Amino acid sequence: MKNISIIGATGSIGTQTLDVIRKDRENFNVIGVSLNKNYKKAIEIIEEFEPKYMVINDYESYSIVKTYLEKEKKKTSLLKDMEGLNYISSLKEVDVVVTSIVGMIGLDPTITAIRSGKDIALANKETLVVAGEIVMKEARLNNVNILPVDSEHSAIFQCIQGSETNDLDKIILTASGGPFRGKTLEELKMVKVEQALKHPNWAMGSKITIDSATLMNKGLEVIEAHFLFNADYEDINVVVHPQSIIHSAVQFKDGSVIAQMGNPDMRLPIQYALNYPKRKDCVVDKLDFFSLKPLTFEKPDIETFRCLDLAFQAGKMGGLMPTILNAANEVCVSLFLNHKIEFLHIPKIIEGCMKKFDYKLEMSLNNIKDMDMEVRRYINLEYN
Amino acid sequence: MKNISIIGATGSIGTQTLDVIRKDRENFNVIGVSLNKNYKKAIEIIEEFEPKYMVINDYESYSIVKTYLEKEKKKTSLLKDMEGLNYISSLKEVDVVVTSIVGMIGLDPTITAIRSGKDIALANKETLVVAGEIVMKEARLNNVNILPVDSEHSAIFQCIQGSETNDLDKIILTASGGPFRGKTLEELKMVKVEQALKHPNWAMGSKITIDSATLMNKGLEVIEAHFLFNADYEDINVVVHPQSIIHSAVQFKDGSVIAQMGNPDMRLPIQYALNYPKRKDCVVDKLDFFSLKPLTFEKPDIETFRCLDLAFQAGKMGGLMPTILNAANEVCVSLFLNHKIEFLHIPKIIEGCMKKFDYKLEMSLNNIKDMDMEVRRYINLEYN
Repeated sequence: MKNISIIGATGSIGTQTLDVIRKDRENFNVIGVSLNKNYKKAIEIIEEFEPKYMVINDYESYSIVKTYLEKEKKKTSLLKDMEGLNYISSLKEVDVVVTSIVGMIGLDPTITAIRSGKDIALANKETLVVAGEIVMKEARLNNVNILPVDSEHSAIFQCIQGSETNDLDKIILTASGGPFRGKTLEELKMVKVEQALKHPNWAMGSKITIDSATLMNKGLEVIEAHFLFNADYEDINVVVHPQSIIHSAVQFKDGSVIAQMGNPDMRLPIQYALNYPKRKDCVVDKLDFFSLKPLTFEKPDIETFRCLDLAFQAGKMGGLMPTILNAANEVCVSLFLNHKIEFLHIPKIIEGCMKKFDYKLEMSLNNIKDMDMEVRRYINLEYN
Repeated sequence: MKNISIIGATGSIGTQTLDVIRKDRENFNVIGVSLNKNYKKAIEIIEEFEPKYMVINDYESYSIVKTYLEKEKKKTSLLKDMEGLNYISSLKEVDVVVTSIVGMIGLDPTITAIRSGKDIALANKETLVVAGEIVMKEARLNNVNILPVDSEHSAIFQCIQGSETNDLDKIILTASGGPFRGKTLEELKMVKVEQALKHPNWAMGSKITIDSATLMNKGLEVIEAHFLFNADYEDINVVVHPQSIIHSAVQFKDGSVIAQMGNPDMRLPIQYALNYPKRKDCVVDKLDFFSLKPLTFEKPDIETFRCLDLAFQAGKMGGLMPTILNAANEVCVSLFLNHKIEFLHIPKIIEGCMKKFDYKLEMSLNNIKDMDMEVRRYINLEYN
């Protein structure tokens, strides 16, 4: 029996994590969950999974759920704020913390969980992007597994099982190319929010869907892969593979390529992370080779989709540059979703921030958080 | 330093094995080699690799090489017959025996090598087809590795590294489809030897190239996979993949597919087998995803290419049936290459033999050899 806390339980990954657990209730126990404000889903989770603790961010939703809990005499304890997140991430009885929350806010509970010796099923890529060095160091010190839940990183992690680290030559990070693959800069000028939210293969939350449209998602994944697999940026190759069947691959030094394949369904990497190193019976549709479209591969167009290039640059520069990139991107995506800026402003503003702020500060959690705030404040003042 | 004997050193796999060794002379020593009659290559091998022992089958070639050795005062000892093969397969100083000889003749030296505790780099698929049960049992008893050199089985072997045997759900054995993929039975009536010898992707010896054209090669590989990976025939799926980039794959019980990819070049699986569990620096062209043609997959046409179906049947029936299938096939391919029978006679004669001979005899090396002889004699009497 594994005891689980889920940071961000009502989002796309959180919901799918609960679905994986739903199909294997004998082996999993939901101890703690956190969410922002979806009180309907919160009540459903309480009724189905009876978590011991629930953290709710939004004040109004907190009140609604509190009333419900009292009326129905439920045993779930309600918590709030970062204190609540850290609490459910460090509970003695918890084995694995699923960090399925989106954005920088996932950093603190992740570090707390690692320091408490919990294995991390990591879906919150921003954590590794801004603090990969610190997170991986803490993970080593506390002897915990960082189990990637991104489909690409889960694929890579599966491909290197049983191999020697120094036999790894190259990471082949596949990308669908997003909804605007093949478009020109001119065509991207006119892009509307609704178009950017239509991903060809994956159903995901809105932040990551926009990141997929700009290719920033792939850029963040490059930085994530750098830290997770201790890979030089020169050895991480992005390959556009529009069918999203090969979820990523590795090339060993003898030239052999090992790839992980499957239908695009996040429940597989979630299940793999929750059960690692074991595998469990299938909860997804199995791949049918005979119904596959031809699998194709192409170079990413980094002239048009500049975010990918900016992420590579930020990763290579190191220090706080990935924090600057990530903060600028988070604000820009939010501004774009609120129709405050255009699609092509996203890379432009990010690049401006990368030039403006000093990234060569000491790498500490405080400096990361301060820089993150500073960049957000600056962009919001200028563009909001 | 690993000491190697190569059974069948002048054929396609033998030559490529020597090429792999050529590029890593510091780590490999060629102790024994065997060959049929190519004395020119034999002399080249002596000059370059200075093996301690050489076994030559053909009497005339033996004499030529003997004269050469005396004249040049070379230290290589010349041996002959099965005694010679068994000798170089069991030498105390040998670590790995590469069985790159084609056909049933590889059986005895393979068993000898296993019983002498040598790891086997197995390219001689007939050994496993006719005596898989005995070979795998002997391998377990003598604690030796059977390291597959077939590109498909090497792929599968690489894909399951680091995984639990009972997590394996399915083997996905890829097939190029051979030179006649898409052809009708009517069109196959007219097939000439020269056409059958033109394989679209792989440069190989003539026996295996004809087997690829009939799909018997894939059938033999199915039986080989059954024994190597302890897989039920129902769990071995043949997938036609004309580009031969995915060399095979496995599906785990959670639905995750792990595939091995590369350019079609046998030196990679040879190198992997010789160095297992280590990997060495690349001796082949690395895969360039950006220059790949679209990867496609289709069902094998077992109505037209009946040999694949016959092999599945023979495998499922078990006992001596794979021996009957294999012997009949070896003779048929030889008769076809000598223009004695037509292409479509191959499955017909094999099927006739499968009906004619009693396969339910005790599984022993002697019974296998007797049955093999009996089937050969019968077909030669009828058709030669």
